[in-house]
Amino acid sequence: MNTKETLLDLFLDTRKHSEAICKPLQKEDYVVQPIVDVSPPKWHLGHTTWFFEEFLLDSYLPGYKRFHDQYAYVFNSYYESIGARVVRTDRGNLSRPSVDEIYEYRAYVTQHMAQLIENHWKAELTPILEIGIHHEKQHQELLLTDIKFILGNNPLLPVYNQINDEVFVSKNTSKWIKMPAQIYEVGHKGEGFSYDNEQPRHRVFLEAYEISSELVTCGEWIDFINDGGYTNVMLWHTEGWDWVQKNNICAPMYWFEENNQWNQYTLNGVTGINKSSAITHVSYYEAFAFAQWKGLRLPTEFEWEAAQESFNWGKRWEWTESAYLPYPNYQKPDGALGEYNGKFMVNQKVLRGSSIATPTQHARTTYRNFFHPYLRWQFTSLRLAQSI
Amino acid sequence: MNTKETLLDLFLDTRKHSEAICKPLQKEDYVVQPIVDVSPPKWHLGHTTWFFEEFLLDSYLPGYKRFHDQYAYVFNSYYESIGARVVRTDRGNLSRPSVDEIYEYRAYVTQHMAQLIENHWKAELTPILEIGIHHEKQHQELLLTDIKFILGNNPLLPVYNQINDEVFVSKNTSKWIKMPAQIYEVGHKGEGFSYDNEQPRHRVFLEAYEISSELVTCGEWIDFINDGGYTNVMLWHTEGWDWVQKNNICAPMYWFEENNQWNQYTLNGVTGINKSSAITHVSYYEAFAFAQWKGLRLPTEFEWEAAQESFNWGKRWEWTESAYLPYPNYQKPDGALGEYNGKFMVNQKVLRGSSIATPTQHARTTYRNFFHPYLRWQFTSLRLAQSI
Amino acid sequence: MNTKETLLDLFLDTRKHSEAICKPLQKEDYVVQPIVDVSPPKWHLGHTTWFFEEFLLDSYLPGYKRFHDQYAYVFNSYYESIGARVVRTDRGNLSRPSVDEIYEYRAYVTQHMAQLIENHWKAELTPILEIGIHHEKQHQELLLTDIKFILGNNPLLPVYNQINDEVFVSKNTSKWIKMPAQIYEVGHKGEGFSYDNEQPRHRVFLEAYEISSELVTCGEWIDFINDGGYTNVMLWHTEGWDWVQKNNICAPMYWFEENNQWNQYTLNGVTGINKSSAITHVSYYEAFAFAQWKGLRLPTEFEWEAAQESFNWGKRWEWTESAYLPYPNYQKPDGALGEYNGKFMVNQKVLRGSSIATPTQHARTTYRNFFHPYLRWQFTSLRLAQSI
Amino acid sequence: MNTKETLLDLFLDTRKHSEAICKPLQKEDYVVQPIVDVSPPKWHLGHTTWFFEEFLLDSYLPGYKRFHDQYAYVFNSYYESIGARVVRTDRGNLSRPSVDEIYEYRAYVTQHMAQLIENHWKAELTPILEIGIHHEKQHQELLLTDIKFILGNNPLLPVYNQINDEVFVSKNTSKWIKMPAQIYEVGHKGEGFSYDNEQPRHRVFLEAYEISSELVTCGEWIDFINDGGYTNVMLWHTEGWDWVQKNNICAPMYWFEENNQWNQYTLNGVTGINKSSAITHVSYYEAFAFAQWKGLRLPTEFEWEAAQESFNWGKRWEWTESAYLPYPNYQKPDGALGEYNGKFMVNQKVLRGSSIATPTQHARTTYRNFFHPYLRWQFTSLRLAQSI
Repeated sequence: MNTKETLLDLFLDTRKHSEAICKPLQKEDYVVQPIVDVSPPKWHLGHTTWFFEEFLLDSYLPGYKRFHDQYAYVFNSYYESIGARVVRTDRGNLSRPSVDEIYEYRAYVTQHMAQLIENHWKAELTPILEIGIHHEKQHQELLLTDIKFILGNNPLLPVYNQINDEVFVSKNTSKWIKMPAQIYEVGHKGEGFSYDNEQPRHRVFLEAYEISSELVTCGEWIDFINDGGYTNVMLWHTEGWDWVQKNNICAPMYWFEENNQWNQYTLNGVTGINKSSAITHVSYYEAFAFAQWKGLRLPTEFEWEAAQESFNWGKRWEWTESAYLPYPNYQKPDGALGEYNGKFMVNQKVLRGSSIATPTQHARTTYRNFFHPYLRWQFTSLRLAQSI
Repeated sequence: MNTKETLLDLFLDTRKHSEAICKPLQKEDYVVQPIVDVSPPKWHLGHTTWFFEEFLLDSYLPGYKRFHDQYAYVFNSYYESIGARVVRTDRGNLSRPSVDEIYEYRAYVTQHMAQLIENHWKAELTPILEIGIHHEKQHQELLLTDIKFILGNNPLLPVYNQINDEVFVSKNTSKWIKMPAQIYEVGHKGEGFSYDNEQPRHRVFLEAYEISSELVTCGEWIDFINDGGYTNVMLWHTEGWDWVQKNNICAPMYWFEENNQWNQYTLNGVTGINKSSAITHVSYYEAFAFAQWKGLRLPTEFEWEAAQESFNWGKRWEWTESAYLPYPNYQKPDGALGEYNGKFMVNQKVLRGSSIATPTQHARTTYRNFFHPYLRWQFTSLRLAQSI
Repeated sequence: MNTKETLLDLFLDTRKHSEAICKPLQKEDYVVQPIVDVSPPKWHLGHTTWFFEEFLLDSYLPGYKRFHDQYAYVFNSYYESIGARVVRTDRGNLSRPSVDEIYEYRAYVTQHMAQLIENHWKAELTPILEIGIHHEKQHQELLLTDIKFILGNNPLLPVYNQINDEVFVSKNTSKWIKMPAQIYEVGHKGEGFSYDNEQPRHRVFLEAYEISSELVTCGEWIDFINDGGYTNVMLWHTEGWDWVQKNNICAPMYWFEENNQWNQYTLNGVTGINKSSAITHVSYYEAFAFAQWKGLRLPTEFEWEAAQESFNWGKRWEWTESAYLPYPNYQKPDGALGEYNGKFMVNQKVLRGSSIATPTQHARTTYRNFFHPYLRWQFTSLRLAQSI
Repeated sequence: MNTKETLLDLFLDTRKHSEAICKPLQKEDYVVQPIVDVSPPKWHLGHTTWFFEEFLLDSYLPGYKRFHDQYAYVFNSYYESIGARVVRTDRGNLSRPSVDEIYEYRAYVTQHMAQLIENHWKAELTPILEIGIHHEKQHQELLLTDIKFILGNNPLLPVYNQINDEVFVSKNTSKWIKMPAQIYEVGHKGEGFSYDNEQPRHRVFLEAYEISSELVTCGEWIDFINDGGYTNVMLWHTEGWDWVQKNNICAPMYWFEENNQWNQYTLNGVTGINKSSAITHVSYYEAFAFAQWKGLRLPTEFEWEAAQESFNWGKRWEWTESAYLPYPNYQKPDGALGEYNGKFMVNQKVLRGSSIATPTQHARTTYRNFFHPYLRWQFTSLRLAQSI
């Protein structure tokens, strides 16, 4: 159990880290929203701050005065219930509040949160604070992937920083990990923080299967491309094929061909493709088609969780075959946080693992990430499996 | 195992039944396609016929000559790979071939199939014929629901026939069926026909649960409406809520309010709502929201299959919580039929059971129907469950 | 001024002619609506009939009983103001009323109109009847072009009848007709029928210009294609270029290339292209781009009208440079007919002349046809002009 | 004729004025593009600069080196013809180049232009420079209206500056100006600068008409609203009515109702509506519907030009009834500038006059502004007319 002191440290470190991610940005980079799935960095900074104001300061810090009475509207995720002055807008059109104002807002809320933790803390607030901290950590990952999208879709292809976001895979040591048919336990065990979608821990029966010890590489992906993978309708889901056709998909995101050579945009600018690095920025549709082409399949999220101790993971999110569904006996939390957090989802696929963009203390073996099957701006990859 | 004779009988009965379904139609009713999910009845009649020509007659009946060289194009499901004369068209714009021509086409193919079965049969053709027959049976269900949509969305609201398509539910005898936590076997056992998505039979572990012995009623649904079910965002999936808003959904399909009274279109014309009849023509989104409102949930497809011997089913398709996924160790069939039949699907929910529109010999305890979560023109309903 | 007898003859002839146009159709052809601009033939037959019921029989024939109380809704042009039973539908989804029912409706209305004209006529009804007759004639032209679209976009490309809808142009006798700068009078003179948009007659000043005595030919159009006309952005309006790109336009409607040879669908089936025939089924955007390519321009509608006595016209509608605007001092008619007829239009271009689909007594030197600039399913063509 | 010195002054003043308009902005305001018709202020600053680089410096200043080799791509209007590194982007997603970099770009180009004008000038460059200057002036007007849109659609409704952008109308002195039927000359006379669409000067014949000496007021518009103007289909063009319905239009842009009182966003923040001020920010569709409601009409652009000496104008752009068409004998300019400038337009309506956002020396009696009929973010208004 976290003490008040460790909570405060964790809180302050988390707040600092969000700002550190944005350090290399110019002010203009904070503002834009090239696609609906990407949020402007300044919105992330404001939204994670609003969370603490909304669910902690406003109710529990005596005499707290909100920084600005319109920010609750501006930085909430959902603009549905609005008053008279409804204006046509979305996140990417909001030039105000300015970046400086948002940093002031952050400082104001951080400071008042420190007061709350130090002087007015009650044990019952700890779970809310933990959710707020992990909520901000989750947005830190989005911050980095959204920044990559914003810069990587700018015609000047500016460098973010000296980070090399590639990950190397050794196919020499690649092997099939055999897993016997039996009942496995999955889900969060209950010590430490987890999101409610990782609970309750429960039993699943898995038929025997094998799972690869390594991720698929860029070299294998180039073989897939050269073998006509993107033009063979038989490999694709019906909706995946529509997506390929409509968007002229012919390679992973950030790849482009010049002089018969594949290049890519990375956070460190444009580089060539290293055949030994893990394939990244592919959609579930692409991952599935690749597995079909190999005569193999993706693991389910439970196959992944059951076997994860036997392989290295953590640099890339890994698509699974599983649709995102609540666990048996899942209970939506009560109250405002439940309303905020417990959105029901359909049509999304589970990803397991974590990525180089995942902040420290945010990866867990039971973590269930989920995205629509066509999305690929996250650091997504895949690991193959087969029934035996 | 079916003999040649029983196969021929089954084949001929199936062919006749498709035509019997269309008996009450006027020629114009065969032609239209009000929404993309509905096909014109004449297309169903032609498409099911084309299947036999494509996969049996053309290859196995000596000297067979296709009825018309363009019909393979017109009655295939997919218009993707086409020659030079590509024309802007879709099923609902095809006035030709005419209904009479399609009936001639049917007679021609039926007669040649009889020849093939009687005079040139080989055991290896039986599985293909069985698929063709079940394919036509599956389209018979669609025929009836598509006809209901075509007539029920015509401002004259014409009667189809004297069929009463309502189903009554006795809530007096309603009870919770308790199912223990254990490993269950699910999937087709291997005798008799099944689709390949029902295989292979395999083990699943289910935590303890209860499932209702009865379907939800229209009376309960009116309570849901009156309690603001369609306007309470907290009950809905994010995408379900978008669907409600965008389409102004406020009641099941075919319901309309007049003088503060709910009415509905049935195959027998407009009638009032009987509170004891099973709710029908609701989407998965609506089924889910209703279960939320009740503080309960939908069963998974495996919970349904494990418990199905303990309740009555068969008049309504029942939404489950399960996303449509291939079973462990599923193998896509080889060859042309595999290409035709083995389409990969995402973003669809499994329905279990069968409906009053399901033809005889087409219902199975392991049958997995699947549709997008917003669809509701099938005879869909729901049964509630809860973890214990 | 028309007498009662000539009115009755004109009325009956008009009614018969609509039905004669549909004679070669199969019932299914009456039903479909491949694009929003095309109406199902049975809708044309019903709508023109409804007009007489709505504006004459219902008010002026003593004791008249409407044929069906829902037809006013079904056959009105606008579905906006509807009662409780609003159903999702549009013209191309209406299988009912059936073709037979619509012919009964026609006979019923025609017969009652004959009674009205013979036994209850008043002079003040003559203008309404004339509008009704010309309204039906206008729909006769649409009937034929809509039928051509329905059949010409069917993969079986069925023949409508033995009509050859091509028109030959003699370039040997082609010449520039010089017109001096001066005030011209344009608009309907006031004897005989005209639509209100042809009035009032008024003066326009035209700077000196020349106009071609002949239409552009298919041979010239092939030169335009071969010279890259459809791929040279400099020749096109911004919106025309978007239209070309989005719809992959590379030739007139109904043209398709096979074995390096251009063919076309005509009402008489598929034929080759005769280089001497008038180019047809081109949009305003294409007509404009062609004129740019030639270093010439389209005439304005007034240039066309001022010069029309000096050239042959009548087989093709001719695009002009003029936007469709009301004439100076135009007064919208009062009352229900005004509401029905006096729709204001923007973003449409005027076409002058008439076509082989225009029924007798419906062409006038002052007739102002108008369509959106991207439409081309009418028998459209062009004649070139230049300032001097 | 401008001398080198006056040209340089005019050039430098124009460059300064663009930057002065942006003075009150925060950096973030430069970046966003809330709707496609609005451009980010930083794009305007870069685009107007690129024009001088592209059409003058690159060809005529010896030894000139472009500031950045990608800017020609970034700041051109059209992204159609691009090389290999095509990226998904549009103006509102471009965080780079940064605002500071664009100001450096501006300074670089301004300074080199001064060198060119002072040291290497040739008379033949004067027309190009004049177009460049007027091009930038035209963008100055867009800058201000785009800024108003960006701030006026932000939920914080920030103030731009102390400018009061309202214009008062005295209805006391309002009168009808009578104009006789005769030939009038319209179009630019040839001294001083004009755009090529104002030429050639030519004759038009106008039937007798009257035109109001004053613009329509907000008070009259409130009467129109209260009389159901926005809900009476009979007043609207078909496409205007669709626009009203689809976008829930019920008042001019920037108006919103609070406590039964109309308010508006102005560049100086939110204020009430002054009934004596000129109605502003209405579309052509609204202007037309208002005129219908009054039983009057809009003037044509020629009626406006013929009468303009008799009334005050210049604070608001005035919608006319005229579609935007080239003048008789209009010749598209040759060469690159022609390609850049001579885009053909359809479906746009002419506005005459100028507005409070129009920079000095940019208003002309023959100026032809044109926009799609649904647009209203410019300072648009209307003046009524009638035929007599």
